[in-house]
This record gives sequence, C-alpha cells and structure tokens, in this order.
Amino acid sequence: MNDELTHFNEQGRAHMVDVTDKRPTERTAVAYGRIVMQPETLSRIQAGTMAKGDVLGVAQVAGIMGAKRTSDLIPMCHPLPLTKVDIRFEAVPEQNAIDIYGTAKVTGVTGVEMEALTAVSVAALTIYDMCKAIDKGMEIQTVCLLEKLGGKSGHYKRDGGNQL
Amino acid sequence: MNDELTHFNEQGRAHMVDVTDKRPTERTAVAYGRIVMQPETLSRIQAGTMAKGDVLGVAQVAGIMGAKRTSDLIPMCHPLPLTKVDIRFEAVPEQNAIDIYGTAKVTGVTGVEMEALTAVSVAALTIYDMCKAIDKGMEIQTVCLLEKLGGKSGHYKRDGGNQL
Amino acid sequence: MNDELTHFNEQGRAHMVDVTDKRPTERTAVAYGRIVMQPETLSRIQAGTMAKGDVLGVAQVAGIMGAKRTSDLIPMCHPLPLTKVDIRFEAVPEQNAIDIYGTAKVTGVTGVEMEALTAVSVAALTIYDMCKAIDKGMEIQTVCLLEKLGGKSGHYKRDGGNQL
Amino acid sequence: MNDELTHFNEQGRAHMVDVTDKRPTERTAVAYGRIVMQPETLSRIQAGTMAKGDVLGVAQVAGIMGAKRTSDLIPMCHPLPLTKVDIRFEAVPEQNAIDIYGTAKVTGVTGVEMEALTAVSVAALTIYDMCKAIDKGMEIQTVCLLEKLGGKSGHYKRDGGNQL
Amino acid sequence: MNDELTHFNEQGRAHMVDVTDKRPTERTAVAYGRIVMQPETLSRIQAGTMAKGDVLGVAQVAGIMGAKRTSDLIPMCHPLPLTKVDIRFEAVPEQNAIDIYGTAKVTGVTGVEMEALTAVSVAALTIYDMCKAIDKGMEIQTVCLLEKLGGKSGHYKRDGGNQL
Amino acid sequence: MNDELTHFNEQGRAHMVDVTDKRPTERTAVAYGRIVMQPETLSRIQAGTMAKGDVLGVAQVAGIMGAKRTSDLIPMCHPLPLTKVDIRFEAVPEQNAIDIYGTAKVTGVTGVEMEALTAVSVAALTIYDMCKAIDKGMEIQTVCLLEKLGGKSGHYKRDGGNQL
Repeated sequence: MNDELTHFNEQGRAHMVDVTDKRPTERTAVAYGRIVMQPETLSRIQAGTMAKGDVLGVAQVAGIMGAKRTSDLIPMCHPLPLTKVDIRFEAVPEQNAIDIYGTAKVTGVTGVEMEALTAVSVAALTIYDMCKAIDKGMEIQTVCLLEKLGGKSGHYKRDGGNQL
Repeated sequence: MNDELTHFNEQGRAHMVDVTDKRPTERTAVAYGRIVMQPETLSRIQAGTMAKGDVLGVAQVAGIMGAKRTSDLIPMCHPLPLTKVDIRFEAVPEQNAIDIYGTAKVTGVTGVEMEALTAVSVAALTIYDMCKAIDKGMEIQTVCLLEKLGGKSGHYKRDGGNQL
Repeated sequence: MNDELTHFNEQGRAHMVDVTDKRPTERTAVAYGRIVMQPETLSRIQAGTMAKGDVLGVAQVAGIMGAKRTSDLIPMCHPLPLTKVDIRFEAVPEQNAIDIYGTAKVTGVTGVEMEALTAVSVAALTIYDMCKAIDKGMEIQTVCLLEKLGGKSGHYKRDGGNQL
Repeated sequence: MNDELTHFNEQGRAHMVDVTDKRPTERTAVAYGRIVMQPETLSRIQAGTMAKGDVLGVAQVAGIMGAKRTSDLIPMCHPLPLTKVDIRFEAVPEQNAIDIYGTAKVTGVTGVEMEALTAVSVAALTIYDMCKAIDKGMEIQTVCLLEKLGGKSGHYKRDGGNQL
Repeated sequence: MNDELTHFNEQGRAHMVDVTDKRPTERTAVAYGRIVMQPETLSRIQAGTMAKGDVLGVAQVAGIMGAKRTSDLIPMCHPLPLTKVDIRFEAVPEQNAIDIYGTAKVTGVTGVEMEALTAVSVAALTIYDMCKAIDKGMEIQTVCLLEKLGGKSGHYKRDGGNQL
Repeated sequence: MNDELTHFNEQGRAHMVDVTDKRPTERTAVAYGRIVMQPETLSRIQAGTMAKGDVLGVAQVAGIMGAKRTSDLIPMCHPLPLTKVDIRFEAVPEQNAIDIYGTAKVTGVTGVEMEALTAVSVAALTIYDMCKAIDKGMEIQTVCLLEKLGGKSGHYKRDGGNQL
C-alpha cells in the first residue's frame, strides 16, 4: 500500500463538499459583468441590425440556459433545482458598454453564486460571438458577485457596488 | 444609461419564472402523440424486422432519457427531480399509426407537462429515425397534453380525449 | 456460450449503422411542423405581450440549440458537424397556427433529416412551454420532412408540399 | 387496436420506476474498482511524469463530474441532487494497481449506488486514457458496490470487503 | 511574474494533445468487459422477466449513447465524429456472466479506444442498474481493449484475447 | 399568411450562419483573462492549501472540458472537432492576480475564438468557485481574444497585447 497517493488525496485532491446535513433555505445571488465594445457595435446592437439577429435576446436565453448547466461546467458545484434565473441588460453608451446583471434563486443547501456568475459569463460570451465579425476587440470586464442572501455565511454585499 | 434596452427587458425578454415561494406538491402529466406511416412500415415494426433493431424498445429508452433532458432543451423550463417517467405505445393498424403516451411525475414546485411532451416527441423522432430508410414520409401528429394533475392550476383534462 | 442472446443481437438489437466508407457530401434537409392554438394566444405571440417574453425569439434559439443536440437525443444518430441551422416561423391566423420550417446542412457522411426535425420539434415544444399558462390545449401537428438533398438516396420532396 | 405492442409494453419495456411516494432519507453509497497496469506505468503516475499531466488529479475531477452525469448516462436512473461526491485513490504497487473508492451521498428518494459506481468507472477510464500511449493493456477490474446506507432496503455491505 | 505556477503547468498540468497535423485515417477499436452475477439474475435477464424490462436492449442503447458522450466524460479526449458504434452481448452461463463487446469506428485523427471502452462501461453499469434490486453483488470485470486498428501506433491486439 | 412574423425573421431572428461552402483550414485562437483576489487567496492557491484541493489543476480540467461544450453553450456556434485545447496559468503576485491563457485549435470551417474564450471563462469561474469560501470579492477581468490565425479574416492580434 502506497501512503503517498492516499495522503496526497487528503491533502490536495479536489472533492465535492458534503452538504448532506445542511437544512434547505432560500438563497439568492446577483452577479454582474460588463462587456466593452466599439461605439458602432453598441449602436448596432441597440438598433437591432446585427447580421446574426437580436443579440441581447439570444444572450438572455443563452445565459439562462447556461445557469442551468453550472454543475456540468464547474467541477465541484452541487446540482441545484434552480427556482429562478433572470438576466437584465443595461446599455451604458458613455462607456461603450453593456452591463449584465444575472440573478439566480433556489431553495437548497448550497448557494447560487456560481449559477448567477455563469449566467453572466455565458451571456457575455454570446454577445461576443454574435458581434465578433465586426468587433474582435470586445472585452468582458469585472465579472463579480454583487450580492448574496441566505445560507450559513449570511448576507454578502459587494463594497462600492453603487459605482459599478 | 440607455433606458431603451432596460425597458425592452421588462417588456419582452425571456425569463425563468420565480417559483421559489411555491410549495412542493405531487404533480403528474400525461402527453400524447401519434406517428403515421406506411402500412408496411408498421408491419415491420410490429414484426421486429427493421434493420436498425427493436424500434419501440429504442424509442422507449430515448423518450425516457429525453424527458430527463427537458430543462436542457426548453430554455425557460425549471430543472426538476423527476420521480417517474413512462411511455406506452399502441399500434393502431387501421390508421397506419402508432400512438404514444408519455407520463411524468414529480414532487415539486412546477408541473411536468413539458417533460411528458418531450418524452413523446423524442420517442416519435426516434421511431422516425429508425424507419426513415424505408419511409421518409412518416408524420408526427397531434402532440398534445392529455391530462395534468397537481399544482395551482389544478386538474386539466383535454376535451374529447376519448376520440384521440 | 449461450447462442440465444448473441443471435438475438443479430436479429433485433439496435446499432449505429457503419458509415465509415461513405464519402462526405453536402446534405440539406428541411422539416416542417405546425402548432395550433387559441386565436387569443396567437394574437398575443404576434403582439409580443406573452408574460414569458418574445416567444418566437426564444423558440428560435431553442430549436437551433436543439438541432445541435440531436445525436445526444436520438440513440442511433451519428454526431455531425452541422454547418447551418435555421428556423423560420409563419403565422397563419386563419388556421390559428404558427408554421415552423427548420433547415439543417452539413458536409458529411449521413443526412441531416433528424437535425431538421429536432429543430422543429424543440421550437414547437418551446412555444408550448411559453404559452401554456394561458393555453394548455395547443397541439403540435404534422411534423414531417419536406425535402432532402444529397446522399446516396438523392433528392426527396414530399408530395403535396405546396398544400402544407 | 393492436394488443400485442401494448401487452409487450407491460411485459418487457423499460420504465423509470415511480418513486413519488417514497420519503426522502439520507443515503450513502461506496463503490470500488481497480485498474491494473505495467509497473512502469504505475511508477510514472506516482512520480507525476506522465506526458498528459497529473493523472490522478484529472481522474478525480472526471469521476466527480461523471457522477453528476449519471442520470444522463444510465437510462432508468432518476436525477438526484447529490450532496457529496468524493473519490480516493490508493496505489497498490505489489499488485501493479491503483484502487479507486467512490462515495456519493444524497437526501433523496432513491439510492446513489449508480452515482458511486459511475464515479469509479469514469475515473478508471480517465486513467486509461491518460496512460494508454504507454500501456494499452491496462485492465479495469472488479467494479462493484462496497456498501450502501439508507433507503428501504437498508444497510448493504459486500461480503469479504476486507480482501478487496 | 511567478515562475512556479507557469513551470508547474509545463511539468504536470493536463492538456489536450495537439493532433492538428495528423492526417485523418480510418480507425477501429474493440473493447471488452464482463459482468458477473447470481445465476438467478442471469436466468431472469435471459428470460426477459426483470421488472425494469428488457435489460440488454436498454444496456445496448445506453452503451451506444454513452460512446457518443465520451469526450464529455473523459477530460482530455478529442471530440470525434463516430461513424459506427455497436455492442454485442454474450451470455456465459457457466461463468454466471454476460460478456460485452463494444466496437467503435471513425475516420479521424485520433483513435476510438476510449469510445469503445466507454460503450462497454456504460452498458455494464446499465445492466447493474436494472438488476440491482435483486442482486447488489454484481461485479464488472476485466474492462480492457481487445483490438485497435489504424493510426500511427498501428495494429494492437491483446495477448491471450482468445481466452477472454 | 402574416407577413410580419416572416419579415421579422429576416430582419432580426438569430440564425446559425451557413458555412457549408467554406474550405476547412487550420485555425488557432488564444484568449486571455485575469482573476484578481486577496493576496492571502493567491498565496494559498500557490501553496496548494485551499480546502477544496489543487485549485489550478481543477480549473485546467474544467476549462478544457468547457471548451468542448462551447457549441452547447453559445447558441449560434457551430460544433467543431477541436484538435487541441490548452490552458496556462501565470501567477502575478504584484497584481494579486492569476492570468489565464487559453488556446484552441481546429482544422475546420469556422474559427475557434469562442472555444478559447470559453476555456478561459470556465477556468476563471472554477477558480472563483474553489476559493469563494474565503474570498467572495474576486473579480474576473479583461476576458478577451489575444490572437487568431487562419480563416478568411486572417491574422488578428490584439493591440497592446504586451501590456496585458
């Protein structure tokens, strides 16, 4: 018997944390991300004249479906029966940007931060995909958790969230 | 800040409805569909002599597995821990058809109509796939909800279900 | 050694047909389906006032993504590197219906009939999902292959396609 | 109406067993498997010098993610909100083997035997994949259930588990 | 800049090997596995009287669909457009076993060993799932590669394959 | 026939662009992203003492597997037989950050920008997941395309890539 590998396992190998004994509670998470682009790209998204179609409509569907795939994508995430996912876009022309807000809710034993963050990331990637023919330089910026409610660690609210 | 996109979001963008506050109850749905074909195709399915194998056996497995993929396929569907899925086939030789009945059950906060309908649709598509080499003209007809039990909207039973 | 099971396998078990020796050619398939509903439901879809959002926009995305999942859903389908998927909706108010046309293309060794049919089916199921709160009686009708180009079996065109 | 197909359905077609009326309880399962290889292969895995990287680290992630896909892979498995998955490796140099232990837990209405067995199988397949360039003769041996707690059938413990 | 992590990456992190410059060739792999059970379990599988249905029919579909998910399950596997997957079962009553043979083919730049092995593993797990209510002690044994054709490393044939 | 919906389709609905007539060529894309955290978080990642295990090892596997799911996540992406995916991490202690570089390659008819960007995004989300118990304020920054080779639009190299 080789102790090294066994021991290494206890030291450093990944595992999906045991949450069997946690009581299901209502949990909410809100994540944020921004995608910055050329002014012309933003104008065309707003005018609905991108060749690939209604960019934000497609990004919204992609983000919501992406949130449902979170535990398939993030190795140590627990599968969760999400009870709500929503995405809201805000155009910020003075920053040549679209702000993306993703919300996820569940009544469960672990939080939904990853689901909210995945919704925002997949929505942003979809915007990139649908506009990349005219603007390869777009950047996804500041993907982060804005707020989290419920669970043992309680209420989390990002500092300076107002400036976002 | 551009109000248009935000406002558009409130107007028309898709969202996954918040069901966090709903109480889990037992829910059942039964869906129906028919696939119509050449008499020869039906005979060979019944005789088990299609080249691709036991058509209805494969369609049954595909429909059940499809029901489990419903929330991956239908964008605004909530993921649900299904507690039962079943499919029943009835050959209707005088109509050159196979009738498909799909049942899904869950104890949860939303209904399982989509799971039952997806089970029927995937089973029908699988029958098409396995017979298309000899009969490209098959038609999937009248996929619909037969009955639904449980949840806020209560009991639904399709009118004229007897004639189906 | 038990011959029965082995023999049964040769008789009737499913298999994924060997297409290794087929030459890749360009292939296209067009499928059709209709979803029939209450006149009020159709009006609200067209007016964009359904509570769950832009119904046909979501159905379009779902159908296209569904086509890409075809080989995950239909057991004996070969995985294919689709080169095009499109869906077109036509409202038919005199029939209280929306007609759905799905097109798939590939350069490959098997046809894309199943991909086109899956696109139509998933789009129709999505319309059902997004309108079921107001109209549980909707029916998906006449899902079928309209046309197919390429491959050994050549050109297929459904009889009476004009009347659809 | 053809009784044969209906009847065949009651006789022999697969179905996903109805567990709607079962009460959720805590359930645990532990599965085991062994992969046997050339001594040189085991040495290189332990030394971390396989060309494809940290073999057991990747196998651990793959096994955990595989456990979450169980109901996608095994047709009649119910989807379950797993609350824990873990994998432990033990090198057994005198047998030229790595032993794999997979644990799954859930609070639910069906057991997690299949999730534990799938975790072990996918981890073993991943080890094979990452070492096959130097050792195509590796064998996956004795994949089995070691222990199971919770549920109607109660505690199961494999005979002779000590010898494993 | 921290060299340690970068360097660690070159040392030990996993990567998906670059096969861009390899020429597509026809490749075949055959894998084997055995599942051992109580004599009564085998009799009931052969008689088709298991409560969950036609065990081997379902296992066949599951194994074929599992082969198509190989690159989703095995982290460093390349996605491949499989051109054939087949599974063959042989009952071996004197060993209380069912032997499973899985074949996969592709015209591509990497081999299909993992696809054949995954087909066998998922088929075996499905047999376990469908019989576990009466026989929790079943064992999956000797999952291995029997033969491989095509590709740079040429023909591989397992020693003593005849005895399997 | 209602022209509005048809016309709307031509105007604005999403579609998966037809690439049937494009010639397969070798294509490469490199994407970048940074995740910023508390100094203590970075130290623990580098020291390998995070409770959930080897953070970057897991993130690497997740990013590579995520790249293979790109066409499942991004609605209008074509499925592609990726021939290489790699991820490289660089700790940047003076910025309290880990830089992530993702590379994807294919011989195909569309580019792999989305695959490289998805690899980076999923790797970054995984780092967030594995460290969020101690640092909820981590930010994913500047996810963008660094370079792209092959295809009709030719070589793209981000301006000021050196400063990244």
